[in-house]
Amino acid sequence: MSTSPTLDLTLELIRRQSVTPEDADCQQLMMDRLSAIGFRCSEVNFGEVKNFWAVRGESGPLFCFAGHTDVVPTGPAEEWSNPPFEPKIIDGYVHGRGAADMKGSLAAMVTACEKFVADNPNHSGRIAFLITSDEEGPAVNGTVKVVEWLQQQGEHIDYCLVGEPSSTELVGDIIKNGRRGSLGCRMLVHGVQGHVAYPHLAKNPVHLAAPALAELAATEWDQGNDHFPATSFQISNIKAGTGATNVIPGTMEVIFNFRFSTETTDAKLRERTEAILAKHGLEVELDWNLSGQPFLTAEGELVSATLKAINAVTGRTGSLSTAGGTSDGRFIAPTGSQVVELGPVNATIHKVDECAKASDIEQLSDIYAEILKELCG
Amino acid sequence: MSTSPTLDLTLELIRRQSVTPEDADCQQLMMDRLSAIGFRCSEVNFGEVKNFWAVRGESGPLFCFAGHTDVVPTGPAEEWSNPPFEPKIIDGYVHGRGAADMKGSLAAMVTACEKFVADNPNHSGRIAFLITSDEEGPAVNGTVKVVEWLQQQGEHIDYCLVGEPSSTELVGDIIKNGRRGSLGCRMLVHGVQGHVAYPHLAKNPVHLAAPALAELAATEWDQGNDHFPATSFQISNIKAGTGATNVIPGTMEVIFNFRFSTETTDAKLRERTEAILAKHGLEVELDWNLSGQPFLTAEGELVSATLKAINAVTGRTGSLSTAGGTSDGRFIAPTGSQVVELGPVNATIHKVDECAKASDIEQLSDIYAEILKELCG
Repeated sequence: MSTSPTLDLTLELIRRQSVTPEDADCQQLMMDRLSAIGFRCSEVNFGEVKNFWAVRGESGPLFCFAGHTDVVPTGPAEEWSNPPFEPKIIDGYVHGRGAADMKGSLAAMVTACEKFVADNPNHSGRIAFLITSDEEGPAVNGTVKVVEWLQQQGEHIDYCLVGEPSSTELVGDIIKNGRRGSLGCRMLVHGVQGHVAYPHLAKNPVHLAAPALAELAATEWDQGNDHFPATSFQISNIKAGTGATNVIPGTMEVIFNFRFSTETTDAKLRERTEAILAKHGLEVELDWNLSGQPFLTAEGELVSATLKAINAVTGRTGSLSTAGGTSDGRFIAPTGSQVVELGPVNATIHKVDECAKASDIEQLSDIYAEILKELCG
Repeated sequence: MSTSPTLDLTLELIRRQSVTPEDADCQQLMMDRLSAIGFRCSEVNFGEVKNFWAVRGESGPLFCFAGHTDVVPTGPAEEWSNPPFEPKIIDGYVHGRGAADMKGSLAAMVTACEKFVADNPNHSGRIAFLITSDEEGPAVNGTVKVVEWLQQQGEHIDYCLVGEPSSTELVGDIIKNGRRGSLGCRMLVHGVQGHVAYPHLAKNPVHLAAPALAELAATEWDQGNDHFPATSFQISNIKAGTGATNVIPGTMEVIFNFRFSTETTDAKLRERTEAILAKHGLEVELDWNLSGQPFLTAEGELVSATLKAINAVTGRTGSLSTAGGTSDGRFIAPTGSQVVELGPVNATIHKVDECAKASDIEQLSDIYAEILKELCG
């Protein structure tokens, strides 16, 4: 049931059960295809994580496709209407784990290069791939390490297109040109344990902390800007007490997270949070964790080329957005690269019956090829 | 190493390993002693719980000793400096599980009756015992059921002395003439689960509830009165989130408890709590649990006789108090009985190396006998 080179490759990648951090030879398959058209491929593995870097061309601006071969677990396989690793095209949709996130994008990147290189064997600049098998997992030995490795060699990515599923209803309707920062904290509030019948001998950490949590939840951290929504504070976990109903707990644990815009900084958020906690007289231990600085690729060559390519292939006008979760773009942008994310519709990612419209994946290959024409043609 | 009848009986009761709800034949031992001096004893067992009722005398006001033969678990036995069920008198203190709560009191009740009956074989009124083996456990098949059984027979307790360890520094310094009510609630706060990166699609129940919890914790429910401290509200448990740091929880569970005075009622507390939750627009499920109404034995024959007896034996002036946790008095007082609690110093109860001063237990027997003289002499 041959369909198209892009869909064939998508199906072949989905068949390889690369649940994070497994790669299941997806990268070997990609490297074989890229080597055949003149890419120089290097495995850049760290720990159990497979990564590769591939580059074509000798000099000039470097355009890089970035992505990951790993997929999230399937959840209960019996809930899938089609087995998750036996991909099938049903009613015009490719069904299977990774169809949207992001094996369709990987296939489209490869076939876009095949078409572009056939027409432009002596293209200008350089075309590269930075592919990892650990984006869905801890993301410690993946893109971030490859970026360090590139920097050690004095290599710089000028333009980076990440294949994350950015679209919401139609392919290309949204491109991500930045992401908010993410700052987490595990807070331990200290009180004094005691018996519910003798509250004067205890200090209830839930009571002590409630007004501070109410103030943190009600605080306006900033109003965002043209590119970013307002910074948001969310408590994800809260816990005190052992289950006994007659004991005042001695401590309470609260885990919270900021998604923050470029209107503030992680240092300012820490300082304002600590001032609110101090104002309420709380005795706390704070374990802060900065998992990503906000980044933004303002309009420039890459954004222009991407919007132009979407319009050329689909007739649509894409919109820019910085909303949503983090992506590996956070590791690449700080090196000074222009970064955008463009991939299929994200409605079914991480869910049972993940799927992507077959025609979207084919259009994505054409859009990627158009971008190559713009930047390396 | 004979010491005195009261201490001998205390040691013999402690040797019987009656960890709640076990009785380990403590009650049989007590019934044997009471039968020998003319008490008519009835076993009144429910489920696995042993209880007995014993009465002496034919008519007139009924004075009842109430108590329990069960003890709380020992915890790690190796932490005890003397094995918990091999009682010993060390430096003037009886050591062993139950020495203070409340096998010393039980022995003192029995020997007080033996002395009193020897001197007053034809005493006025009636003397009774209501003893259970489930006060430290769920307390479902213990005193509450025996009280129902007595009511079915038209029996009424006029005066009840509960042997709970009421004293704080010296035996008789504090007698409890009431207890606060206890009203518990398990609250489920509903929100809408979502991803931390998309807060506009979620409703965080922790954020929604924080101002309401702060208001509940800051509310003055009443100011107490001459007999009761102010009503107190305490959160014992709070929980939301699954551990994932990027998920806004869909619900939060909060368990709280009121210890309340006679200045309010459980219905008023429920109403005021629900009004505060409604004011903050919370969508909640509430599972209320009233575990005891407040009760008070204002000054009267029983309180007077008890204070007088303490003074006669020890020279001390006892103070009245309604502080502390619940006791089986909550089941007896609602039938219209006068109820006081008087027992040894409670500093070591429920702890490793529980102990009671040997001379306190002997004085307690004398105090109990004096009370009998006052009320049935």
